Amino acid sequence: MTGRVLVPWTQNRDNAPDGLRVEVYDGSAEPPVDLDDVVFYVLPYGAEPVDLMRRMPRLRAAQLLTAGYEHAVNALPEGASLYNGRGLHDASTAEHALGLILAAQRELPLWAAEQSRHSWDPHYTRSLADSRVLIVGYGSIGEAIEARLLPFETDVVRLARRPRPDADVYGIDALHGLLPEADVVVIVAPHTPATEGLVGAAELALLRDDALVVNVGRGPVLDTAALLAENGRIRAALDVTDPEPLPPGHPLWDAPGVYLTPHVAGGSATFYPRARRFVDEQLRRWSVGEPLLNRVALDHG
Amino acid sequence: MTGRVLVPWTQNRDNAPDGLRVEVYDGSAEPPVDLDDVVFYVLPYGAEPVDLMRRMPRLRAAQLLTAGYEHAVNALPEGASLYNGRGLHDASTAEHALGLILAAQRELPLWAAEQSRHSWDPHYTRSLADSRVLIVGYGSIGEAIEARLLPFETDVVRLARRPRPDADVYGIDALHGLLPEADVVVIVAPHTPATEGLVGAAELALLRDDALVVNVGRGPVLDTAALLAENGRIRAALDVTDPEPLPPGHPLWDAPGVYLTPHVAGGSATFYPRARRFVDEQLRRWSVGEPLLNRVALDHG
Repeated sequence: MTGRVLVPWTQNRDNAPDGLRVEVYDGSAEPPVDLDDVVFYVLPYGAEPVDLMRRMPRLRAAQLLTAGYEHAVNALPEGASLYNGRGLHDASTAEHALGLILAAQRELPLWAAEQSRHSWDPHYTRSLADSRVLIVGYGSIGEAIEARLLPFETDVVRLARRPRPDADVYGIDALHGLLPEADVVVIVAPHTPATEGLVGAAELALLRDDALVVNVGRGPVLDTAALLAENGRIRAALDVTDPEPLPPGHPLWDAPGVYLTPHVAGGSATFYPRARRFVDEQLRRWSVGEPLLNRVALDHG
Repeated sequence: MTGRVLVPWTQNRDNAPDGLRVEVYDGSAEPPVDLDDVVFYVLPYGAEPVDLMRRMPRLRAAQLLTAGYEHAVNALPEGASLYNGRGLHDASTAEHALGLILAAQRELPLWAAEQSRHSWDPHYTRSLADSRVLIVGYGSIGEAIEARLLPFETDVVRLARRPRPDADVYGIDALHGLLPEADVVVIVAPHTPATEGLVGAAELALLRDDALVVNVGRGPVLDTAALLAENGRIRAALDVTDPEPLPPGHPLWDAPGVYLTPHVAGGSATFYPRARRFVDEQLRRWSVGEPLLNRVALDHG
C-alpha cells in the first residue's frame, strides 16, 4: 500500500480513501512523480501514454478509460493486470443511437434544411412508436439502447454472438429469420473477423421496404456497397462507416434516405462524470483489497 | 341501440361488438346512410365535417379525434354529448420532444449540414444524460415525455397549473425557483390567457447559460422577443412558434442555437393505430352501456 497511484483528475485524488498515496497526472506533460514506485496507473483519457508503463517496474494495475485495450498490452509490465473502460461510453452511445433513430423517423435533417430555407411546410412523418427494433450485438450498450427504446412503445428483439435463451437473446443463426420482421435494425457489434460484413447484401434484401438500419458499432459490420445497392428501398442512419472517415465524394454522403454523423456517438459530455465515478470506485476497491472491475483477460496472463 | 353508428375506418366496423349498426364514413364524400337515425358519430379525422351533426336529430354522442373541440360545439344537437381525442397524440408529441432535445444536445442539425458538405469533422458534444429537465404544463403529454426521459439518466421536475404535492407536481408559483436549476425546460402547456407569455424575459433571465428551451405546446406560451433577446446565451428547439407559421425573414429562422420544426410533433404515424383502438374501445363501452371516455365538460350541458 505504500506504492503510488496515478489518477487523471484532481477530483479522484480529493475523493481517494485515506492511506493511498495519490498523485494527479493528466497526460499533458511529464508525470510529476518518480515512476519507480507506481503500483496503480489510471491512464489519462485521450493522451493515453501507454509507454510510461515500461518505466513502472512495480506496477500491479493499469486502468484504461477506453473499451479497446490492444494498444496497451505490449507495454504492460510483468505482474501487472490490465483493466478497461467497458461501459463508460454506454450512456453516450445509447443516447446517440436514439437520436439517430428519432432523426430518421421524424425527418429531423429535413426540417433542419427547411429551416435554413425559411420554409414552414409541415407533413406527417413516420414514428418510432409501434416499431419492432432488432438490436444486433446485444451487450451492455445494447441493454442501454433497449432501456431507452422501451418507453417509446416499441418491441425490442435481442441478438448476440452467443444465444442466451434464458434472457431472450437470439444467436447469430437467427438473424435471417428476424430481419423480415424488423422495422429498425440497430448494429452495435464490434469489428471482429466474425462480424465483418455481417449485415450484407443477403441480409439487407430480407428487410422490408422502408426499414431503417442504424450503425453505432463499427463501420465494417455493415457492407457499404450492399447498402448503396439497396438505397432508396431501405433507409440508414450511420455514426460509423466503411471507409472511415468517409472521403469527400463517396456516394454514401448524398445517398437519399441515408443520414450520417461522424463517429460521435461515444464522445459526449456523459463520459467524464461516469469515468470519474468509476475511477473513484476502483480506488475504493484497491484500498480495501476488493477485486477491481473490468479486468481484461489476456492470453499471456 | 337501434340507431346507427358512423365510424371513420373499416377496421372499427369489423371489430364492432355484435348488435351495433355500424357504417363507415371517412369524410371524403357524402355519408352513405340516412342521418336521421345516427346516434353515435365518430368524426372523420382531418375532414371533420362538424356541420353534418345538424342533420342528426337523434345524436347522443359525437366523438372527435382531436384534443381541441371548440369548432364542434355550436353544431352539437340538443341532447348529444361531446367526446374529444385527448391522449391520442401524446405518444407522437412526446417522441418528437425527445427528438428535439437529442437533436439540440447532440448537434444533429450541424451533422446534417456537415453531411451536405461531405465533411467528416467530429467533436465532443453536450449530452442529455445527467440533465435536469423541467416540464412546464405537466399533464398526459408531460407524463409521456417524462417516461421517455427517465431511462436517459435524467432528473425530471414537474410543474403544472395546479400543484399536486402528493404527486411531486409543483404549481406555477414555483416556476421562478425551479428555472435556475434546469438544464432543459420543456413547454407543453396549452395556450390560455393564463399561459400566454408564461415563459418571458424574466423567466429566461433565470436560466443558466447554455440551457435549452423546448416548446411542443403552443407558440404564445414562450415570448419570442424575449427568446431572441437571450439568443446566444441560451438555446431553443421549437416545434411551435409565435407567430405561426413563422414568416420568411423572421429573425428566429437564423438565430444561432435555435432549432425549428414546423408544428409536426403531433402529426406522425403513431396516431392512426391509437385512434382506431380508441374508437374500438368507445364502441365496446357504448354497446354495454359503460360511460364513454374523454367526455368534454361543456358550460351549456
